[in-house]
Amino acid sequence: MDIETLRSRDPDHWMTAAAIRTLTLDAVAAAKSGHSGMPMGMADVATVLWSKHLRFDAAHPNWPDRDRFILSAGHGSMLLYSLLYLSGDPEITLDEIRNFRQLGSRTAGHPENFLAQGIETTTGPLGQGLAMSVGFAIAEESLRARFGKKLMDHHTYVIAGDGCLMEGVSQEAITLAGRQQLGRLIAFWDNNSITIDGALDIADRTDQPKRFEAAGWHVQEIDGHDPAAIDAAIEAAKKDPRPSMIACETHIALGHAAQDTSKGHGALTDGQQLLDAKELYGWSYGPFEIPQEIKETWEAFGRRGAGEREAWEERLAAASASRQAEFRRSFAGEAPKKLSATIKALKKQTSETAPKVATRKASENVLEVVNPVMPETLGGSADLTGSNNTKTADLGVFDIEERKGRYVYYGIREHGMAAAMNGMALHGGIRPYGGTFMCFTDYARPAMRLAALQQVPTVFVMTHDSIGLGEDGPTHQPIEHLAISRATPNTLVFRPADTVETAEAWEIALTQTSTPSVLSLTRQGLPTVRTDHKTKNLSAQGAYVLADATGKRQAIILATGSEVSVALDAREALEAEGIGTRVVSMPCWELFAQQDEAYRKRVLPAGPVRVGVEAACGMGWDRWLCGERGKAQRAAFVGMEGFGASAPAEELFGHFGITAEAVAERVKSLL
Amino acid sequence: MDIETLRSRDPDHWMTAAAIRTLTLDAVAAAKSGHSGMPMGMADVATVLWSKHLRFDAAHPNWPDRDRFILSAGHGSMLLYSLLYLSGDPEITLDEIRNFRQLGSRTAGHPENFLAQGIETTTGPLGQGLAMSVGFAIAEESLRARFGKKLMDHHTYVIAGDGCLMEGVSQEAITLAGRQQLGRLIAFWDNNSITIDGALDIADRTDQPKRFEAAGWHVQEIDGHDPAAIDAAIEAAKKDPRPSMIACETHIALGHAAQDTSKGHGALTDGQQLLDAKELYGWSYGPFEIPQEIKETWEAFGRRGAGEREAWEERLAAASASRQAEFRRSFAGEAPKKLSATIKALKKQTSETAPKVATRKASENVLEVVNPVMPETLGGSADLTGSNNTKTADLGVFDIEERKGRYVYYGIREHGMAAAMNGMALHGGIRPYGGTFMCFTDYARPAMRLAALQQVPTVFVMTHDSIGLGEDGPTHQPIEHLAISRATPNTLVFRPADTVETAEAWEIALTQTSTPSVLSLTRQGLPTVRTDHKTKNLSAQGAYVLADATGKRQAIILATGSEVSVALDAREALEAEGIGTRVVSMPCWELFAQQDEAYRKRVLPAGPVRVGVEAACGMGWDRWLCGERGKAQRAAFVGMEGFGASAPAEELFGHFGITAEAVAERVKSLL
Repeated sequence: MDIETLRSRDPDHWMTAAAIRTLTLDAVAAAKSGHSGMPMGMADVATVLWSKHLRFDAAHPNWPDRDRFILSAGHGSMLLYSLLYLSGDPEITLDEIRNFRQLGSRTAGHPENFLAQGIETTTGPLGQGLAMSVGFAIAEESLRARFGKKLMDHHTYVIAGDGCLMEGVSQEAITLAGRQQLGRLIAFWDNNSITIDGALDIADRTDQPKRFEAAGWHVQEIDGHDPAAIDAAIEAAKKDPRPSMIACETHIALGHAAQDTSKGHGALTDGQQLLDAKELYGWSYGPFEIPQEIKETWEAFGRRGAGEREAWEERLAAASASRQAEFRRSFAGEAPKKLSATIKALKKQTSETAPKVATRKASENVLEVVNPVMPETLGGSADLTGSNNTKTADLGVFDIEERKGRYVYYGIREHGMAAAMNGMALHGGIRPYGGTFMCFTDYARPAMRLAALQQVPTVFVMTHDSIGLGEDGPTHQPIEHLAISRATPNTLVFRPADTVETAEAWEIALTQTSTPSVLSLTRQGLPTVRTDHKTKNLSAQGAYVLADATGKRQAIILATGSEVSVALDAREALEAEGIGTRVVSMPCWELFAQQDEAYRKRVLPAGPVRVGVEAACGMGWDRWLCGERGKAQRAAFVGMEGFGASAPAEELFGHFGITAEAVAERVKSLL
Repeated sequence: MDIETLRSRDPDHWMTAAAIRTLTLDAVAAAKSGHSGMPMGMADVATVLWSKHLRFDAAHPNWPDRDRFILSAGHGSMLLYSLLYLSGDPEITLDEIRNFRQLGSRTAGHPENFLAQGIETTTGPLGQGLAMSVGFAIAEESLRARFGKKLMDHHTYVIAGDGCLMEGVSQEAITLAGRQQLGRLIAFWDNNSITIDGALDIADRTDQPKRFEAAGWHVQEIDGHDPAAIDAAIEAAKKDPRPSMIACETHIALGHAAQDTSKGHGALTDGQQLLDAKELYGWSYGPFEIPQEIKETWEAFGRRGAGEREAWEERLAAASASRQAEFRRSFAGEAPKKLSATIKALKKQTSETAPKVATRKASENVLEVVNPVMPETLGGSADLTGSNNTKTADLGVFDIEERKGRYVYYGIREHGMAAAMNGMALHGGIRPYGGTFMCFTDYARPAMRLAALQQVPTVFVMTHDSIGLGEDGPTHQPIEHLAISRATPNTLVFRPADTVETAEAWEIALTQTSTPSVLSLTRQGLPTVRTDHKTKNLSAQGAYVLADATGKRQAIILATGSEVSVALDAREALEAEGIGTRVVSMPCWELFAQQDEAYRKRVLPAGPVRVGVEAACGMGWDRWLCGERGKAQRAAFVGMEGFGASAPAEELFGHFGITAEAVAERVKSLL
């Protein structure tokens, strides 16, 4: 690539974009780590986008109707930090740029949405940004339908690299976007033909434009260093009713000695090569130095949308009080006031009628009363609607011609669904939930982790949560999946025992603002164990005494979900033999761990033997069975030791010894 | 679809295929659960394939050079069981068909490879079979290059449904197969336009033929109920040098009242509708009744390859003794005799030179000596070759023109890589290993679980295994991933502390025959802790005393991997203060748990306080810290409480308090 030609083609553009390239070089050199090549390759695309198209007001990075900019190729974080700093973001200062990748800085190695408001998403695990962008675009369509074009009318832009496009989740994302014809979604492919292992060709020869066309996208192919072509392509993309992919042919590490090599992907820290690149750019300034006129040019880009934002604020202020309140409430992630009363009423009714239902059905019953009072919910399932019980009567289906529909048929795309939900939650205004089988936590894992890391309250409705699934067998029977979710930081894992606990779990999940929830629900019917109505949300304490010993307390049985009724049956048998037995229901370990020591000791006093029962692997149970570390505790766990098997569910519980008899025997063996 | 037309088009074929359809209807009706529609829809394709093309000898389902048949749409398991039973498989008898989905039967809800030799793979989690088929095809290419066409010369056939093609992993699989031009791989797409939630159209409008073409595949579109068209398409597919996709337009639940509906996907159990379907088929036989002439026709198909197999056996017998032995050894999954001595020599040398290296580099050093003596290894990385240290000098690159290469550039396809490795291991003759970052266990999860469930010794080389990764930050820093792998049944998780333990871990992993291994390796350099050479593989006991207390034993510090040297430093500080401290290295929990109680108590005697240290979440540690349940144990854990952060690694260990000082302090606070 002849840099002279590029410089002379549009000298103003060149220097404006060079600010990104040089900041990147300086920051990576200072950090002695990072990824230089991508920001240097995509600087032209980003400059044209931010200077001419992106609807934003740098001083107000949280304006709800801004265009969203998502850097799916998150290793190129210096591209984003440069754009934010240059355009006048209040949080990404030059000091932050200087502290790139250092402890306590907002400029982490990969963009972290919780470190600065201007960072829309956490990216780095490849493909996630692209998959989340689909959720952003769905959120915009849904909110435009709900609040009107005056309050919601923007685009979602995403930059994806070869890595993003090779990850399987990208296929789920682009086919979902294609099916839904998300015309406001515009993706730039950084087509630089380089990966870490070498030329892209050694691992991939996919015809990406053809692939996107096959998914129903509008595709353009351009020179990613030609500002006029970039501008025209964005213009055309905005006009086309399909989601758009702009394949941008670029040179990684443009102008550096490492240009067009896999070395250029990583940290370019050689001092002389850095100076050589700057000279080639015609950039005569020192490290981290941005000449005033270039900074002013960028700041003008950052103010370009200020008028639009102000006009938008006026339109919001002109809306009816209730409409304003509803808009603000939805974007604040506040649950409606009616939610609590709705949940309480359902709990009361359930305690009285004591139905025997599967908790997946209980979940549907909860959603039937919640969805009408919570217009911000957007439900869905990865092709298991009738099994996950995620669709309620009033939702309607979200589709090309019906954006008011609040139910998404995600198709067989667990990973894409989970990532899209994260995107919706990050966008704001939407409270997404979606279902699949608990076992397919595996498929959704990378996005479920990112929900936790990004601090978004996505709700994962995971049904068929044990060998109680029955005949479908071990491929579909979760064993380790509760442990997987519980091991993940900042995640609430609920395994409710009946409709009452399911209602409580939903109430907690729907009032979170920065923590995702996993609802682990049964396929099989369960009796109501909470027949004594309490308005208080007992699940909010994580664990509580469901039934106490009648005489001297000799044993405590701890259980979750479908095994709570097993524990109650075991207790009955033990009590009949004069063995005073307490049953503790533990619908949410994480919330129990957050309680003060006094409460935890009240629920789990030292002394009585303890038996835990859960139709899953025992990983993590010792924490509750061994008691506070340092105290003797005779204890045992009744659960699964290996994979399940294919057979009717009742037979499996007997086969694997997860029965009231077995639990009672274990208690007695410890006494 | 007019059944009359189909029947009259080729009456013999029709009745042969009808045997599959009726067995499926009968088995699902008897089980009152299962999936009827797919076997009924794909019976024609399967019949043509098995009767005219599939190279197999039903009586010898383990013939190494058979064609492989993989049912990626595993819910249609009755298709496979019907084919096996009808063609004369020795294990899938009529009794097994009658016991479909019952406890103890070989005919589980989804095909389980460990229940019958004729079942090549465990499928059910969608897309896995397709992704594994790529590994089967790579294995065949590699072994053909190694042993010659006389001993290895077959095809891999796979049936995939819409669900398989919507799962992201399918994209990783087909682009990898396309890049490698795996011409012996032939995929049938069951194009029936139906999913569980309804018409496929509600969730997907992807142009699948175009998508496969974009990935470099040969594509044909046919009527999946036309035997002549099926035959011709397979013929053409075999001739084309590209991997082939045959889009078979079919009718789900053909001929049943539920045909072409999502209801037809599931269990069709209505008695009258079953009889109506059989009548429409012209099938006048009772439940599970196959008329003799049809059974004989099928058994003739099952014997069709007997001559080829015998000729193959003769060719093998005619090969040199060493060649035969090498072939048999590779397929038996036996490690070469030299492996043990090679590992011992490396251990001895390491103990003497005591290098400070990262365990990822240690792993490379092990592979440098192992790969030359173990020609069945096939390595690779998901675009992190230089970081995972998975490529050794002698391997060569597996590519279209160089099938002898033993290193695969998998591209940014962690999931596809893991599934492909499972396929290779299932194929036999290959010992696959592949690397990515430990954090991307998340992407590979569904395949890693299937490795464990399928009982194959795949080796997952997971580097950058903690906050020691440094500046890349929390998206790349594993926290819960050790717990995830340890919670998975039938999985060995190794976190070696130095080169010696890394060599021991590799030795154990490479001698497994039915258990996958996860190697959790550091980015950062670690001192050699095993400076005292022992020929015995101490890691094989899972945990062992690395350094004992010099005086009275007051504390035991338990650690893994990079924290073993932290524990040793803490011990030194404590001993200097007169606090007798033992350090236990625990490279593999699972193997320690398998030791007898006497050994476990010798390593972890009751009495001394215990502190565990691992730069990961604490999930599962209580098992070792609380001691045998029922014994008092003062204990603490030093590790991670939440996600990591972006900063230089050394700073992070200090920031999160995972230091020798902190460990020593914790010990003292417990005394």
